Amino acid sequence: MNIPLIFYITGWILNIEAILMAPSAVVSLVYGESCLPLLGAIALCLAVGIPLVLKKPVNRQFSIKEGYITVAMAWIVMSIAGMLPFLFAGAITNPFNAFFETVSGFTTTGASILHDVESMPKGLLFWRSMTHWIGGMGILVFLISIIPMVGGSKMNLMKAESSGPYVTRIMPTAKESASMLYKIYIGMTAVMIALLLAGGMPVFDSLTITFGTAGTGGFGVLNSSCASYTTYQQIVITVFMIIFSVNFNVYFYMINRKFKDAFSVEEARWYIVIIAAATAITAFSIRGSFSSFGKAVQQAAFQVASVISTTGYSTTDFGKWPALACSVLVLLMIIGGCSGSTGGGVKICRLIVEVKQLGRELMSYLYPGSIRQIRLDGKKLDTSIIRSINVFVGAYALIFMISVIIISIDGYDFTTNFTAVAATLSNIGPGLGSVGPADNFDLYSNLSKMVLSFDMLAGRLEIFPILLFFTPKAWKRF
Amino acid sequence: MNIPLIFYITGWILNIEAILMAPSAVVSLVYGESCLPLLGAIALCLAVGIPLVLKKPVNRQFSIKEGYITVAMAWIVMSIAGMLPFLFAGAITNPFNAFFETVSGFTTTGASILHDVESMPKGLLFWRSMTHWIGGMGILVFLISIIPMVGGSKMNLMKAESSGPYVTRIMPTAKESASMLYKIYIGMTAVMIALLLAGGMPVFDSLTITFGTAGTGGFGVLNSSCASYTTYQQIVITVFMIIFSVNFNVYFYMINRKFKDAFSVEEARWYIVIIAAATAITAFSIRGSFSSFGKAVQQAAFQVASVISTTGYSTTDFGKWPALACSVLVLLMIIGGCSGSTGGGVKICRLIVEVKQLGRELMSYLYPGSIRQIRLDGKKLDTSIIRSINVFVGAYALIFMISVIIISIDGYDFTTNFTAVAATLSNIGPGLGSVGPADNFDLYSNLSKMVLSFDMLAGRLEIFPILLFFTPKAWKRF
Repeated sequence: MNIPLIFYITGWILNIEAILMAPSAVVSLVYGESCLPLLGAIALCLAVGIPLVLKKPVNRQFSIKEGYITVAMAWIVMSIAGMLPFLFAGAITNPFNAFFETVSGFTTTGASILHDVESMPKGLLFWRSMTHWIGGMGILVFLISIIPMVGGSKMNLMKAESSGPYVTRIMPTAKESASMLYKIYIGMTAVMIALLLAGGMPVFDSLTITFGTAGTGGFGVLNSSCASYTTYQQIVITVFMIIFSVNFNVYFYMINRKFKDAFSVEEARWYIVIIAAATAITAFSIRGSFSSFGKAVQQAAFQVASVISTTGYSTTDFGKWPALACSVLVLLMIIGGCSGSTGGGVKICRLIVEVKQLGRELMSYLYPGSIRQIRLDGKKLDTSIIRSINVFVGAYALIFMISVIIISIDGYDFTTNFTAVAATLSNIGPGLGSVGPADNFDLYSNLSKMVLSFDMLAGRLEIFPILLFFTPKAWKRF
Repeated sequence: MNIPLIFYITGWILNIEAILMAPSAVVSLVYGESCLPLLGAIALCLAVGIPLVLKKPVNRQFSIKEGYITVAMAWIVMSIAGMLPFLFAGAITNPFNAFFETVSGFTTTGASILHDVESMPKGLLFWRSMTHWIGGMGILVFLISIIPMVGGSKMNLMKAESSGPYVTRIMPTAKESASMLYKIYIGMTAVMIALLLAGGMPVFDSLTITFGTAGTGGFGVLNSSCASYTTYQQIVITVFMIIFSVNFNVYFYMINRKFKDAFSVEEARWYIVIIAAATAITAFSIRGSFSSFGKAVQQAAFQVASVISTTGYSTTDFGKWPALACSVLVLLMIIGGCSGSTGGGVKICRLIVEVKQLGRELMSYLYPGSIRQIRLDGKKLDTSIIRSINVFVGAYALIFMISVIIISIDGYDFTTNFTAVAATLSNIGPGLGSVGPADNFDLYSNLSKMVLSFDMLAGRLEIFPILLFFTPKAWKRF
């Protein structure tokens, strides 16, 4: 294990985090609030981060193992540093709560322990939403795109932080790929801000809601989440929640005018079909509560997009919707967005592979001896990827069940516990029952909050890095 | 597809079913009830079954495909025939209810649509419990053990009907293996009946409760399930629920005095550890409601054994237990018993393989290039078995989620729908919420009852046979 290099990269993470906190300090100044909590956090990040990067490590060995450990370490350190402004300002006093809230931000979950968002200082709210934007595409991907890094590290870092079971290198080098991803990300973020501003949304809301949408996070700045926004604004948010949770390869192909390739991304096509079907069923289920079927469709589309993209915004307490609509939303919670996007969950491409594997298994009984390959986008999938998908699904289920058992010590009902785990492990935000859109996660004990924080990290980093981080064998020198 | 042979075997199933209905007709006579409903069903079974077996098919080709289709077909036909006594007697008037109840019996689920079990004629109750005993070890395994069957069919039938991802042939031929399994099954059934009779349980209850325990089914003959039985009787039931859900290889080794081999069956050891841990946690969770901790342990052990063995008996409405106990029980619902037993669920051995795969995946990052094999009982597991386990887990999750969505059209709460599917797909019986031990499944619509019946069959036959049966391609001649 190349520990010096891991610490070196962690140092850079802290320095970048300090820089990224700066705009929030400016927001504090603009609103006439004290910017000391943010400045204090910035100073502390730099005080630890700068010494760590002063000396470049000599040993450049950096395999997938180091990639996984670094990503897990970086995300934990980044969350601890990110919670400092909340603690310093006294806006959140329980450190378990502050950690939960920050992990929820970076992992783009959007689950909150806050009872009253609107009473928070604007600078802190801005930082809280910004954690979504940073976590969405990934801070290490950002690091790769701007800093000349040591040899073998880039691709393994990217693999470890990106979502989905494999990374398509869209450009010749990891640095160029990372840079291209961030260009697309920043471009789409800018378009969304412009559209919201054009629709008359205040600047502060436009920025923070866009950060939450781009990262598919879900932290809002109003207690009612998105309920008070206009229909136009809600539609913009709906469309962009979907856009940011589609495989970014689609946009890369579009930029290069390869529209046929863009259309042939299987994952994106399945995704759109699933969203359309889920919206239709949900709208049908809730039609009785709305004046027109069009309104029901718009509301269904918002909630479906919010849940499947794992954003977690809401325009209503969908926990009170009929059972059919609720069940569809719970199912979407587990499915999640596309790989190579900012969305969480099990991911559409894993679902596709599971379905194709089932088809192959049945065919193998009908036509014994026939060897059928599993293909995605017309290309044969490597057996190691299929194996890793299978292990992921099993591990997801195991973590899910163990988490439900531990948090049920607190005594809440099954729906609450089940959807609390689904909503954190899939990085959505609100669940149903007592953790529905109108409620928050503060009811849980500190132990449960740690379990749910672990689930959020496991979900965002796709399980293996965070499990490896807690494997004692990984830390042995050999 | 060798359709003549499939019909030939189905004919035998109907004839055997007719013979197995005879004891229930005798019970009717003993209790002075009309035995016409049972005699009518027997006549109808023979009227269809005898013509089908008159001519032995010439083509003896019988691959795993024919095995799967035959098993699915046999179980559906057997359930349709098995519901006739209930309909003829007018004890159940809705055919969807009668089908649900009979499928629940044969699949050893034990979920019921009856509001008042005690008002049923004794002959029908006896038949209802007997379906558990028949379904537990499997009617085709029974057929193999008694009737000289066509060439290649035996092993493929056994594979298709037995539980678990693989069948260990404990004897040189399939016929001898099947016969040995039934000898063990009958022997243990006899011991349990004797122990219950010795404990003062009435003959009728001793027989029916033993049938329900041996098949890990769960149909009782009292409205209170097992609550009114003595502590001694409850302990006997607890122990035998566990015994019947342990891999039968253990008993085979014991009979042959290979105690070392018996102890080395990995699945059985994990199973006992899981039961012990779950009982401890549950007893801890419910300790406040009982006068002594010993009583809490006894009650916890009963419910844990009932749920993990997928029997479904209850001594209390455990849906009212604290959240921790409920969560543990829901988790056990999904895990289920051992392969090669009468228990249902995902099965312990699949859980073991999932955990071992996760360990292997993590190690593959730490020690790249190292190829680690997955072993069970010291033997390397074939990759096709691992693949089939992975597909099974994925398919189980898919069927689970789709079923929850369809039955939630009826509008019941999430806990009810989720545990209704868990309880049927894992062949347990009662769930939580409105389908708890004190309630029944009659609240659901006919559509939902068909979905849950499908789930029970899919669970008992381990998904692939029943999916293949509904694949149009399987029925093409080629």
